[in-house]
Amino acid sequence: MTISPLALPFPELAPIAGVRIGTATVPYKQWTRDCVTLVELAPGTAVAGVTTTSKCPSPEVERCRANLPGGRARGLIVNAGNSNAFTGLSGRQAAQTQAARVAERLGCAPDQVFSASTGVIGVPLPVDLALAGVDRAHAALGQADFLAATNSIGTTDTFPKAATAAAMLGATRVTITGIVKGSGMIAPDMATMLGFIFTDAAIAPPLWQAMLSAAVANTFNAITVDSDTSTSDTVLAFATGAAGNPELATMEGAGADALAAALADVCRQLAILVVRDGEGATKLIEVNVAGAVDDASARRVALSIANSPLVKTAIAGGDANWGRVVMAVGKAGEPAERDLLSIRFGDTLVAEHGAVVPGYDEAPVAAHLAGSEIRITADLGLGPGRARVWTCDLTHGYIRINADYRS
Amino acid sequence: MTISPLALPFPELAPIAGVRIGTATVPYKQWTRDCVTLVELAPGTAVAGVTTTSKCPSPEVERCRANLPGGRARGLIVNAGNSNAFTGLSGRQAAQTQAARVAERLGCAPDQVFSASTGVIGVPLPVDLALAGVDRAHAALGQADFLAATNSIGTTDTFPKAATAAAMLGATRVTITGIVKGSGMIAPDMATMLGFIFTDAAIAPPLWQAMLSAAVANTFNAITVDSDTSTSDTVLAFATGAAGNPELATMEGAGADALAAALADVCRQLAILVVRDGEGATKLIEVNVAGAVDDASARRVALSIANSPLVKTAIAGGDANWGRVVMAVGKAGEPAERDLLSIRFGDTLVAEHGAVVPGYDEAPVAAHLAGSEIRITADLGLGPGRARVWTCDLTHGYIRINADYRS
Repeated sequence: MTISPLALPFPELAPIAGVRIGTATVPYKQWTRDCVTLVELAPGTAVAGVTTTSKCPSPEVERCRANLPGGRARGLIVNAGNSNAFTGLSGRQAAQTQAARVAERLGCAPDQVFSASTGVIGVPLPVDLALAGVDRAHAALGQADFLAATNSIGTTDTFPKAATAAAMLGATRVTITGIVKGSGMIAPDMATMLGFIFTDAAIAPPLWQAMLSAAVANTFNAITVDSDTSTSDTVLAFATGAAGNPELATMEGAGADALAAALADVCRQLAILVVRDGEGATKLIEVNVAGAVDDASARRVALSIANSPLVKTAIAGGDANWGRVVMAVGKAGEPAERDLLSIRFGDTLVAEHGAVVPGYDEAPVAAHLAGSEIRITADLGLGPGRARVWTCDLTHGYIRINADYRS
Repeated sequence: MTISPLALPFPELAPIAGVRIGTATVPYKQWTRDCVTLVELAPGTAVAGVTTTSKCPSPEVERCRANLPGGRARGLIVNAGNSNAFTGLSGRQAAQTQAARVAERLGCAPDQVFSASTGVIGVPLPVDLALAGVDRAHAALGQADFLAATNSIGTTDTFPKAATAAAMLGATRVTITGIVKGSGMIAPDMATMLGFIFTDAAIAPPLWQAMLSAAVANTFNAITVDSDTSTSDTVLAFATGAAGNPELATMEGAGADALAAALADVCRQLAILVVRDGEGATKLIEVNVAGAVDDASARRVALSIANSPLVKTAIAGGDANWGRVVMAVGKAGEPAERDLLSIRFGDTLVAEHGAVVPGYDEAPVAAHLAGSEIRITADLGLGPGRARVWTCDLTHGYIRINADYRS
């Protein structure tokens, strides 16, 4: 497996008080690496989460949805190599049985155990392996080793992805650290996106959920590699409270804004890392849309550009083909006026007033497109709506990963 | 340019009374082949049309939209090699000037001249070449040579595409013949889809438009190669009346049903030919969705499957990866129930009741996927809604055509 040319180094991460991690290997696949990850969380840990919008969710996603309203978590179990999605009753039973074993080992209620699985679809999680994985990972529990955990939750990821930020809650310094797996969007069979975020802050579950939902909207929900949405996408955020700050319960609490900002920062870093590991990606593309009738409309136009195979192949080829951006704006089904639209690559205005700019010089655009971080901006000229999304280019590497093998 | 492995032979086509065609070459591109096509239509010819939904349409599309309510056509001019889209005022003037020259040559009003252009976006149609093209094509006018016309309207097409059907209107036999260009969907800069249909039947414009709109919905609007919608897509249908039948004005007229069926048949043949010439296509994929809450919902689910890069790459790889179909159903945003969904490849039931079928044997599926015509069927089990769409697989050929060059 070739490491993505857009990979970034793994950051230095301190342990988070109240978080213990153990990883282990079981033969879900022919892998020798660890693929079962157990996280033990201090009693009272608050949990928030966001799951896939798919109408065909995995049993693990269903477990998370059922348990999130309780607001408290003691354990997290993650399987890599088998998504357990679309596996009927036996898959649901396997997920419950594994969670029950975690609850037994950690001495907590099963509904405080959260689950996630990623890998091939349609093959029930083998219960014997799932239970052996819990036991082995439990025996390995220790101070949080986020690099080991990141490697253990990965599938086709080509590099480990994590991010961290700090915030002051009154006099208390708290840390937020997240890990994520996903390579290319978020494909159903090998590259589902899973993100897990940990903080030592003390915060009430409803506020933590509100902060996470807000952060996800402009980060994990603003990335696309290939427009395909997984059956297993899950982001869970855990707040152990071990930092000792007075529990935050409202946005008026000391440092709540700072914590929300740090959480959003970690989510944004993690989301962009997923795009940087997009299947076959050679360029990171930031798409900005301004001047839409509202933010929701801007977002749909931005995703129309970011999901267009013709835009993505043009960027792959370093081709200043702004006509394809015009096309993608035009097809989005959102309010747009051809003659009010302007388009920029990088900082260079390319087209406005329904035509290419007079005396258009392609040189600065070609120089921008030769880099590995590309910015496309479309201003619709209609209103105040804005959005930003991230994607990657579409290359032979994507085809190689997804077509040139048999599962 | 390699001919698509899914190409079909050009059919034998008789001339249509009341239709004369001339083609000519001008240097829009470095092509030596003809790229300007002039069609002269008998006085009184009825016209119907459907154009792109893009919010950034070309001036030619705007001209067609403005002229269609008149219901009558005497001329059609088609330029290949330059789409004239997103070219501002000078592009609009070029289209008007060229149409005026056609009107002058044919001795008709400019609003009975229809225009279409296909090719690179953002470069105004050169007026001198456009006028020279009209003059040369006019000098070449003669009995309709549909093969010459099909070759003259093409851009990246790898084979010429046409279809024909006949119908009895009372005692009068009428013929419908259509030609189409488009390779891959319907890309904005090189592969815009244009379709032109001719019949000698006599029919009132409103009824002809109703028949065309109905036919397009389940044919040209039910194909996708890469989900990208052109700024120039146009289908025009001309009825010269030269066959001499009493003019059809309502669906109660003798043979109206037969004419509508023949028109739908020609549209379906032409639409599938476009997919067969899809950029990089090696397999034609028919996606059937049944059991949706209604037909519109079924169509959106079918397009979610047909546009999924992961489904399309799986088919390219001959991979019986039904989990990707589950994913595409799940992401469509339409009513669906995981445990009511069933999926077939070809005639083989693969998954139902939320899991793979007991004793699933991949052999017949693998045999079906090894062929060049693939059928995927998803039954949602919810209601009476049905839809059928066509697409092709996503291969290295698509990347090669769209990324491995600079425009």
